[in-house]
Amino acid sequence: MTSPAPDRGESAPFLAACRRQPVPHTPIWIMRQAGRYLPEYRRVRSQADFVTLLRSPELAAEVTLQPLRRYPLDAAILFSDIMTPLQGMGVDLSFEPGPVVRAPIRTDAAIDALAQLVPERDVPFVLESIRLVRAGLPRGVPLIGFAGGPFTLLCYLVCGRPSKEFGAARSFLYSSPGSAQRLLDRLAEAMIAYLRAQAAAGAQALMLFESWAGLLAPPEFERFALRAVRRTVAGLRDTGVPLIYYVNQGSALMECVADLDVDVIGVDWRSPLGRVRRQLGPTQAVQGNLDPAALFAPPEDLRRHAARVLDEAAGAPGHIFNLGHGIWPETDPDAVARLVDYVHERREGVSR
Amino acid sequence: MTSPAPDRGESAPFLAACRRQPVPHTPIWIMRQAGRYLPEYRRVRSQADFVTLLRSPELAAEVTLQPLRRYPLDAAILFSDIMTPLQGMGVDLSFEPGPVVRAPIRTDAAIDALAQLVPERDVPFVLESIRLVRAGLPRGVPLIGFAGGPFTLLCYLVCGRPSKEFGAARSFLYSSPGSAQRLLDRLAEAMIAYLRAQAAAGAQALMLFESWAGLLAPPEFERFALRAVRRTVAGLRDTGVPLIYYVNQGSALMECVADLDVDVIGVDWRSPLGRVRRQLGPTQAVQGNLDPAALFAPPEDLRRHAARVLDEAAGAPGHIFNLGHGIWPETDPDAVARLVDYVHERREGVSR
Repeated sequence: MTSPAPDRGESAPFLAACRRQPVPHTPIWIMRQAGRYLPEYRRVRSQADFVTLLRSPELAAEVTLQPLRRYPLDAAILFSDIMTPLQGMGVDLSFEPGPVVRAPIRTDAAIDALAQLVPERDVPFVLESIRLVRAGLPRGVPLIGFAGGPFTLLCYLVCGRPSKEFGAARSFLYSSPGSAQRLLDRLAEAMIAYLRAQAAAGAQALMLFESWAGLLAPPEFERFALRAVRRTVAGLRDTGVPLIYYVNQGSALMECVADLDVDVIGVDWRSPLGRVRRQLGPTQAVQGNLDPAALFAPPEDLRRHAARVLDEAAGAPGHIFNLGHGIWPETDPDAVARLVDYVHERREGVSR
Repeated sequence: MTSPAPDRGESAPFLAACRRQPVPHTPIWIMRQAGRYLPEYRRVRSQADFVTLLRSPELAAEVTLQPLRRYPLDAAILFSDIMTPLQGMGVDLSFEPGPVVRAPIRTDAAIDALAQLVPERDVPFVLESIRLVRAGLPRGVPLIGFAGGPFTLLCYLVCGRPSKEFGAARSFLYSSPGSAQRLLDRLAEAMIAYLRAQAAAGAQALMLFESWAGLLAPPEFERFALRAVRRTVAGLRDTGVPLIYYVNQGSALMECVADLDVDVIGVDWRSPLGRVRRQLGPTQAVQGNLDPAALFAPPEDLRRHAARVLDEAAGAPGHIFNLGHGIWPETDPDAVARLVDYVHERREGVSR
C-alpha cells in the first residue's frame, strides 16, 4: 500500500474553483480523459480487457495518469466504471461492451437481495488504485473519485442493458414508485459507503454521474433521482471534499438542483452556462461544457467555441472547464492539447 | 383517386387549437397512434413488412384509420416514415428495423448527387394514402401530414444508421459547416416540395419532426437546424394549413423557436408546458407533453399525470394534448382509452 503524496492539493486551481475561490487560470479536465482517444490507453487495452483493467490497480492507475503526462490538466479522475460497486453488491454483470445485468432487478425481493456494499471487502482494487494514483500525481493536481447517480444505476439494473430510452426503468417509476424508491434508497446507501471509502483512500473530490437524468421530467426527477442524490450527498458532506453532481441532458432540471448541497454542478453541452448560472444562483460552481463534437472543428473554430464557454461562465467565481460529455474515441489528441493550452492562456474573465 | 370528403374539418377542435381559437374540449391525438401497441396494427404488419406497408396506400390508410375507430381522437396522422422522401431522392435505404443508409452522405459531391424530389413522381403512394385517409375519416377529424426536420434527416444521412449520439453528424457540423448547410438547404427544399404535395393531396395540417434537435446546443441549433426549418416553413406558409414543429429534447431551445413562423410547437415530456409557454410567448400554440411512460401508471395516477399537463398548459388558448414522444409498443390500449376520455371530459382550464 502506498501512502498519499504529501501534497494534499489544497492550493490546486481545481479545488479552488470548486469552492468558488480565486484561481490563477480556469482549471480544466476532461470527462473520459483516460480513454480510447489516447494511443497509450489503447496499448494498455490491447493487453488487458476492460474488466481486467478495472480490477488491476497498477493498470487502472497507469491509464488514470496517462493524460496527465500528455497535458497540463488540472485534475485526474480515477479510471473506473459506475457499475463496479454493483458487482460488489452481488449483481451479475458483464460488459458487451455496455454493461449487461444478467438478472434485471424489478421486484422488492430482488432489491432486498442486493448485498450491502463493504468497499474494503468488495472493491479493494478501487481503493488501491486511488492510493497508487495519488502517489504518482504531479503536485497541485487533485484526484477525483466518482460513482453513478442512484437513478442512473437504477436504469441499468431495471433494464438489464443500455438502451436509448430506458423504457423499462421509466415505466417502473410510474408503475411501481414504491419499489423504485426502495431501490434508489438502497443504491444511495451503497454509494455513500463507496464514495466515503474513496475519500478515505485519497480522493480529493467526489463526483456523481447522473448520465440518464435527462430521461425524467422535473417532477419525476425530483421525486426519484434528486431525492436519492440528496440522501447521498447528506452522507458525504463530512468528508470535507468538494462534491460534484453531473446532470446529463439536464436543461430542464437546473432549477431543481439549485438548492442541492453540492459544490459544483456539472453541465452538459446543451445548456449555456450563463443561463445555468442564473438558474442555479450563486452557491454552486459550474463545470463544463464544450460539445465533445467541437474538438473536430478546425483549430481557429475550436478556440472560438471554447471562448464561448469561457465567456458564458464568466462574471462569477467557480468555473471548471470541461466537455459537456465524455470525449469521443475518434478525437485527435492534438486537439485536446490545443484546447487545454487555450483555456489556460485565456485569462480574461478569470476571477482572482 | 378519391376526392377529399366534403367536411374540410375547419370547425375541428384540433385546427381551432392550432390557431389558438376557442375549443369545446382540449383536443388530443397521440404520436405514433397508428402503431405496434394496437393488436389490429400488428395483424396488418404480420401480413406486410414495414416497407410494403409504407408503400401500399390501402394498407397505410387502413392503419392510419385504426386508432380513430378505437378512440375519439381529434386528429389523424398519416402512417409513414420520415425517411420515405429520401428514398425518392435516390438514397439507398433499408430498415433493419431502424433506417440504414447504404452510402452515408458526407461530401459535397454526394450532396449534389441527391435527386430533386418530385413527390407526384417519386412518392405517389404517400399522396394516394392521404386521399384514401381523407375519404375515410370521421367528420371533424383532420389529417396531419408530416416530414422530418432537415437536421434530423441529416443525422441519418451522415451517420448511415441510428445512433445514440449521432457523433458523425455532429462532428460533420463542426468540421464541415459549409457542407452541412449545403445538405440542409437541399433537404429543406425537398421537404417543402414534399409537404406542399401532402397539403395539395388533402393534409389539413403539416408537422415537422425534429427528433434529434436535442443533440445541439442553442448556437448550433440556430445555425444549422433552425435555419433550415425557417427556410422550410417559409416555403409552406401559403398552403394555409397550420404548421407544427416538434422539437424533441428541446428544453434549452424554446427561446430559439419563439419567433419561428409556425402555429404550434410540439414539446417533449421533459419541458413543463407552463415554462414553455413563458419562453415561447403568446404567438404559438403548444402540443404535448405527457411522458409516454406515464401510460404504465395505475389509472388514478395516470389521471393525475394528465391533469398536471392540462394544468401546466392552461391559462392561454392553444393546447393540443399529446404525449411528449411516440407511444411505446408495450402500452396497454385501454390506458390510451382512459387518457383520451379524461382529457375530453376535463373542461377546467379550457379556453372557450
